Amino acid sequence: PAVSPAAERLRYILGEEDEAPNPTLFTEMDTLQRDGDDMEWKESARWIKFEEKVEEGGERWSKPHVSTLSLHSLFELRTCLQTGTVLLDLDGYSLPQIIDDVIEKQIEDGLLKPELREKLSFVLLRKHRHQTKKPIHRSLADIGKSVSSNTGEILEPEAPTLVGKKKGENPNFGNCSLPRSRLCRQLKNKFIKKIPKDAEASNVLVGEVEFLEKPFVAFVRLLQATMLGGVTEVPVPTRFLFILLGPAGKAKSYNEIGRAIATLMVDDLFSDVAYKARDREDLIAGIDEFLDEVIVLPPGEWDPNIRIEPPKKVPSAEKRWVGLHPCPSNPNRSRTPRFSFGGSHQVSVSPRRCLRRFCGGLYLDIKRKLPWFPSDFYEGFHIQSISAILFIYLGCITNAITFGGLLGDATDNYQGVMESFLGTAMAGSMFCLFAGQPLIILSSTGPILIFEKLLFDFSKGNGIDYMEFRLWIGLHSALQCLILVATDASFIIKYITRFTEEGFSTLISFIFIYDAIKKMIGAFKYYPINSDFKPDYVTMYKCECVAPDPGEFTPGPPGQQPGSNALNLTALDWTQLSKKECLKYGGSLVGKSCKFVPDLALMSFILFFGTYSMTLTLKKFKFSRYFPTKLRKLISDFSIFMSILMFVGLDVLFGLNTPKLQVPTDFKPTRVDRGWFVFPFGKNPWWVYLASALPALLVTILIFMDQQITAVIVNRKEHKLRKAAGYHLDLFWVGILMAVCSFMGLPWYVAATVISIAHIDSLKMETETSAPGEQPQFLGVREQRVTGIIVFVLTGISVFLAPILKYIPMPVLYGVFLYMGVASLNGIQFWDRCKLFLMPAKHQPDYVFLRHVPLRRIHLFTLVQIICLAVLWILKSTVAAIIFPVMILALILVRRLLDFVFSQHDLAWIDNIIPEKEKKEDDKKKKKKGNKGDSSSDEE
Amino acid sequence: PAVSPAAERLRYILGEEDEAPNPTLFTEMDTLQRDGDDMEWKESARWIKFEEKVEEGGERWSKPHVSTLSLHSLFELRTCLQTGTVLLDLDGYSLPQIIDDVIEKQIEDGLLKPELREKLSFVLLRKHRHQTKKPIHRSLADIGKSVSSNTGEILEPEAPTLVGKKKGENPNFGNCSLPRSRLCRQLKNKFIKKIPKDAEASNVLVGEVEFLEKPFVAFVRLLQATMLGGVTEVPVPTRFLFILLGPAGKAKSYNEIGRAIATLMVDDLFSDVAYKARDREDLIAGIDEFLDEVIVLPPGEWDPNIRIEPPKKVPSAEKRWVGLHPCPSNPNRSRTPRFSFGGSHQVSVSPRRCLRRFCGGLYLDIKRKLPWFPSDFYEGFHIQSISAILFIYLGCITNAITFGGLLGDATDNYQGVMESFLGTAMAGSMFCLFAGQPLIILSSTGPILIFEKLLFDFSKGNGIDYMEFRLWIGLHSALQCLILVATDASFIIKYITRFTEEGFSTLISFIFIYDAIKKMIGAFKYYPINSDFKPDYVTMYKCECVAPDPGEFTPGPPGQQPGSNALNLTALDWTQLSKKECLKYGGSLVGKSCKFVPDLALMSFILFFGTYSMTLTLKKFKFSRYFPTKLRKLISDFSIFMSILMFVGLDVLFGLNTPKLQVPTDFKPTRVDRGWFVFPFGKNPWWVYLASALPALLVTILIFMDQQITAVIVNRKEHKLRKAAGYHLDLFWVGILMAVCSFMGLPWYVAATVISIAHIDSLKMETETSAPGEQPQFLGVREQRVTGIIVFVLTGISVFLAPILKYIPMPVLYGVFLYMGVASLNGIQFWDRCKLFLMPAKHQPDYVFLRHVPLRRIHLFTLVQIICLAVLWILKSTVAAIIFPVMILALILVRRLLDFVFSQHDLAWIDNIIPEKEKKEDDKKKKKKGNKGDSSSDEE
Repeated sequence: PAVSPAAERLRYILGEEDEAPNPTLFTEMDTLQRDGDDMEWKESARWIKFEEKVEEGGERWSKPHVSTLSLHSLFELRTCLQTGTVLLDLDGYSLPQIIDDVIEKQIEDGLLKPELREKLSFVLLRKHRHQTKKPIHRSLADIGKSVSSNTGEILEPEAPTLVGKKKGENPNFGNCSLPRSRLCRQLKNKFIKKIPKDAEASNVLVGEVEFLEKPFVAFVRLLQATMLGGVTEVPVPTRFLFILLGPAGKAKSYNEIGRAIATLMVDDLFSDVAYKARDREDLIAGIDEFLDEVIVLPPGEWDPNIRIEPPKKVPSAEKRWVGLHPCPSNPNRSRTPRFSFGGSHQVSVSPRRCLRRFCGGLYLDIKRKLPWFPSDFYEGFHIQSISAILFIYLGCITNAITFGGLLGDATDNYQGVMESFLGTAMAGSMFCLFAGQPLIILSSTGPILIFEKLLFDFSKGNGIDYMEFRLWIGLHSALQCLILVATDASFIIKYITRFTEEGFSTLISFIFIYDAIKKMIGAFKYYPINSDFKPDYVTMYKCECVAPDPGEFTPGPPGQQPGSNALNLTALDWTQLSKKECLKYGGSLVGKSCKFVPDLALMSFILFFGTYSMTLTLKKFKFSRYFPTKLRKLISDFSIFMSILMFVGLDVLFGLNTPKLQVPTDFKPTRVDRGWFVFPFGKNPWWVYLASALPALLVTILIFMDQQITAVIVNRKEHKLRKAAGYHLDLFWVGILMAVCSFMGLPWYVAATVISIAHIDSLKMETETSAPGEQPQFLGVREQRVTGIIVFVLTGISVFLAPILKYIPMPVLYGVFLYMGVASLNGIQFWDRCKLFLMPAKHQPDYVFLRHVPLRRIHLFTLVQIICLAVLWILKSTVAAIIFPVMILALILVRRLLDFVFSQHDLAWIDNIIPEKEKKEDDKKKKKKGNKGDSSSDEE
Repeated sequence: PAVSPAAERLRYILGEEDEAPNPTLFTEMDTLQRDGDDMEWKESARWIKFEEKVEEGGERWSKPHVSTLSLHSLFELRTCLQTGTVLLDLDGYSLPQIIDDVIEKQIEDGLLKPELREKLSFVLLRKHRHQTKKPIHRSLADIGKSVSSNTGEILEPEAPTLVGKKKGENPNFGNCSLPRSRLCRQLKNKFIKKIPKDAEASNVLVGEVEFLEKPFVAFVRLLQATMLGGVTEVPVPTRFLFILLGPAGKAKSYNEIGRAIATLMVDDLFSDVAYKARDREDLIAGIDEFLDEVIVLPPGEWDPNIRIEPPKKVPSAEKRWVGLHPCPSNPNRSRTPRFSFGGSHQVSVSPRRCLRRFCGGLYLDIKRKLPWFPSDFYEGFHIQSISAILFIYLGCITNAITFGGLLGDATDNYQGVMESFLGTAMAGSMFCLFAGQPLIILSSTGPILIFEKLLFDFSKGNGIDYMEFRLWIGLHSALQCLILVATDASFIIKYITRFTEEGFSTLISFIFIYDAIKKMIGAFKYYPINSDFKPDYVTMYKCECVAPDPGEFTPGPPGQQPGSNALNLTALDWTQLSKKECLKYGGSLVGKSCKFVPDLALMSFILFFGTYSMTLTLKKFKFSRYFPTKLRKLISDFSIFMSILMFVGLDVLFGLNTPKLQVPTDFKPTRVDRGWFVFPFGKNPWWVYLASALPALLVTILIFMDQQITAVIVNRKEHKLRKAAGYHLDLFWVGILMAVCSFMGLPWYVAATVISIAHIDSLKMETETSAPGEQPQFLGVREQRVTGIIVFVLTGISVFLAPILKYIPMPVLYGVFLYMGVASLNGIQFWDRCKLFLMPAKHQPDYVFLRHVPLRRIHLFTLVQIICLAVLWILKSTVAAIIFPVMILALILVRRLLDFVFSQHDLAWIDNIIPEKEKKEDDKKKKKKGNKGDSSSDEE
């Protein structure tokens, strides 16, 4: 449509772009209250961005809400500005002077009878009463005098001293020697914190008086913002003044007009107009432009009494500004400096552009990450880090113990819990210190475990020395990793779309959940419950150690001299032996209670499930209404720590012999016949050194895929990382650490998906509250190296923490694992799409892809993913698990095939958060297709 | 403000009030889509009350939302109606004819060039495509042909057959012999269910065409609603037609205008105007009136892309209507017959008016309740009743067993579990059958129990026959109750305000919760856990029965002949004795495991807590997004039953010997020396018969207070009961039943607060879905006698259900009790106010009283209540519990005293849902106080 005259006018006055942005406006509306013959101005609402109203009866501020206006009042306001007095750039230094000037002007213009000057001036200079918090203890004092419904706070009588304060003087340095002075009260008002420092005030005064016959309207802009004494609730200098006094009987209407101008004053576009208006017409044009943009709710579909909660996001003023300036010469000109936070300029460097140069990717990674290195440390010092450290630390040592135990079993203790701890600590801390993405947490993973097991069995079967063989495989694999780094092979990640990435992380999450539950169920097998127990027949239950029949031939237990054994057997008091000893000496256990262990299984379940659900509950506590925001955030951040503490306490209280976390206490290799260094030569024939390159290739693929896909997940766009990724640098360090670990005979490490996601989740940042009613925005992740390093240092010294750690029952930690698995499913679009299967169409959330892709196509896509995952799950459960990471390549392939089944339009919405490029292409396609313009009404 | 000309005009045309209300309008908007040379009309949105949009890409209906319009489009629409063709009461029978007429008119008026007639007619008669559900299995068929983004459903080519159907013919009887015919497709559309039967359609057609130079606008009202073939999605006859075709390039703008007229058409007031408009000016006036009422959202504070969820309630058209008719001659004239449900005319009869006439209250109660008597039965047959019966039945028998057991202890089995069952069954079913408020559930209560205990001890100590004494007390008390009925003493309930009522029910809820938890903790004492158990030393744990030292003198157990005993003692195999037998024969238990019972305590806890939290979770499931609404409602209704079933199943699975529900299986008095009838004379001296009037007085007060306060809670205004209360009738039956119970030696019964609330909660009704987007409204409670009667009949025959009931573990039932206690706290304002203590002011919910009463006054009021409850709790825990119901009188007194501390204004808001009378007084007071008009902006 052609540009309206109002827009034309605005475009002209707002055109000069070199100026500094205008200050934020704080608007306060005071209404004239009459109590008998006494009159005073009482604050009735205020605006920073949203409206806060004084609840008359409740003597409190309402919640911030969107100002719902009536169209009528906006038109009346327009008329008011057309007929009333408009004084722009008045040089005012005090309220009486300003009011004098305004009245003078009105009399000049013949709008006001001169004889009303005194009366009007008297009314306008009445004292102002502000809504301030009244402490609760005052309430008791009230009881004596109440009965009558006198609920207002009356300030001490105070002449309206109106000493002007120029803008230059900083009111915050005001001398508070007079504790009851007005300024002091203003300064004590905590609300000042919500107002930006450079803010200016606009005061709206409305009321009805008997002596006027027609409304007295004035809009004043001061040349300089001036402190007008007690007019404003907070010590903010006033720039604008709107006065509406009218004949009695229309108070409600005046009130609505006051709300309308107040809402206009806090509108980004109109406040600009108000600052730059040259005359009355400019202001009118501002209102017209505002009217053109307003959103209208039909009266039959909405109740005007409902206060609308502020939206999560409001359209930026820029967008509206563009409407006026079709071709802005400087698009970066910030029109919303207010309440905007930190420069989170997204640096999303795709590895594509650093292809084809030897080590180019690595070089660029280092070059990109180096400038952030110092901030990686000082940004880590924050209370949130403590909770993250505790959480991840517990996850890491549980993992280290679990995998250590399994590795010990698989390799006949060549690598055991001690090696696992040392390796985790060393590799993890090195990685966090130097890698490209320090948010990634290294850990042993399932496929590596299976590989080690196969390798050990092979070595044993073929008489090859396992440790030396393993060293060479590690060295070859490290070399291959470095080659991959040098050739920038990480470019493959560009094929890892949401499909692959989410499939992988869902699978890993499921494995976490499955393992946690499996271990829990294991407790019921390990501690069987005697379900036939009758309390009354307690006398029937016993378990006695019965000596073996002496006539029978009993072989001595292995490792004991048969002589001494035979000697002891007869002298032994069999009834005093414990279960283990009894079996050791060849005795047999007889009795109904031998097979059963009371209470432990059920207690384990209570601890497991309790920890999980308590964590979930505390995490959600952030969104409850109770307690101040800060406390809630703290509880939410420390939810895992608090639940662990609580259930450890419960366990201690019951004193049951539940399985506890046990870390090794001596710093020495698990197996006595190995040291901390593996010598590379001497034990195997020479061809083994070369042949080990082959199994190394498998390890390399395994490590490469596991590492890079986790890195892709961590570097997801949704996480809003500022410091960019470093795929090449990450892989470089994984390779180096692999070589080191191989030399020291420690397990190999690679990025662990679920723990890394948990790490990120525990470091998420949100904006602090700004203008009342504005929703906190997700800012990004606290990217630093401190938490990771401390976690792994702590893991290293856990050997010394054993006396503390031994209080932690394993079921509690399994509960934490369950929580980690479930939490890492959150925010995965695939999981959201799975849930859609169970929802009737009309109850489905308003996901953006649902607006653009037919539901059946979405279901089909989800179904393909589910089938892929099912196949992977089956693979994972067999020996084929070793080629599991390779299967990710198959996932990528499946995704390429889907290109032939789904349209690019659909895929763009489901498989990606619409990348800009594709979307534009999509738009073009649409336009070519003809007159579909009307269908895009809500996309633009 | 003076009435605007538009309002004046509307008042005139809407003035005739004797007419039947207009039918509901269903509005459908179709836009012209072009695919190459092909053109068709595609449905893009529809309205019943709220807007549903077709998601272009998603091929689905959006959620119903409030239509947010732009002010601009409303003004453009106004211009369109001013300049376009308006044909009112056109006699059209088919679309081609109507279109011909419209085009003819335009040509006549010189708005259209005659040569465009053909082209325009061609465009307007293109076929219409509707958004219908596409089954998912079609998706697989799509795969072959897709790749291209062809996502539309193309109907088979079909000439726009336009056989008109007159309104008289009911389309629902259409013959579906042609399965693929248009009408059949229309009839199959499930959406038709959402549209009221008498509805008419308004069709909005907008689009852009090249050949036009200026817009072609037409607004048509047909003389009779006519089926226009495939124009409308559902077989609803069309009454209005709005056509906007314009030059190319402004599709979006046309679309917005179309949405504006569609929104107007579903507006209650405008649709009336549209039906009755005499000319163009009336329609314009309608728009002006609409504009005057619209709610405006400032563009900087709201994102127009957010779809606003329909509000819980919209202002009634009546209220808006009153704006036009300051003094409506007939205020009951229903202007919103659409989507309103059942005639739930609130009959709140206060007992005040039936004072001062002998038996007047009782007479009026019977007179009032009698007409409802038949409906009390047939309204009970509903699936919801089944869930209510199961829930309340389990509550009742648990209560009967608990109280029966305690009474048995207290009265040396004169009244035991059997008496409790019989009494509950008899009293309960009689009460539900004949009482004034059959939703009340009778039960034994704590104070009665304590009274019986004191009475029994007194009788025993003074040689008075307990049963006869008790009979006389019961008779006296019954007589006193009847006197209270006859004198209409129930008027006292008018002093039972929210303060007293909520205090009482909170206390009872707390007692429920406390008892449930106490019983649970009791399990840990009853089944002690051996916390020192080490699985390895299982051999050390045993419990042996050791024979008493034969030298020592052992007295035989009571009731056994010492001779046979002495004989047996030596012959006994002590190791084969159970714990009880061992102790019986004087043996002693030796061993570490004697004191402990494994697993049972923890299992009990899991069952208890599991049942409670599962019930809570399933109850909330109604608000989840999964599964269709009906299924969710079913799950929510049966939540308690399902959780009980689940945890009974779990218990059976584990097979542990947890304490089970045990009901008596033989129908005979618990004590063998008493029968089913107590003879009134012969055992006590004559003066006892008279003296028993004194203790009877205490019982009467006890019963009266307990009964009436529970009745007040049940008859709360919030429950929206239609069939009114019957305080006098209730008390009458309680008295009669008391006499009967006394003669039969059964416990006395009185209304049980928590179970009655649970009964009501499980019978709550909501509106079924009506117009898409409308929120279900709470309709009231399914008031009937069937559930209560069946519950008590079941209780009576529980003796035969014992084999089933014995599977239910007691901890599960304690879990149900905990749930009942917690659930009955919901909706208690006092409890909401208690929570306010923990919430910072800005997070507090927007309770209406918070807007009108200062927070510190609210806190003070709550504090007084808390102190009162604390005092009552302490009383309850001592012997003084017997005067507990009398303390309720003290509560009433405290409330009267509060009149001197709080203003009537505050109390009106906190202590009552503002009764109309007081509110008006309040308003008057306000007006007197002077110019506070501006403060009431959001109350009106």
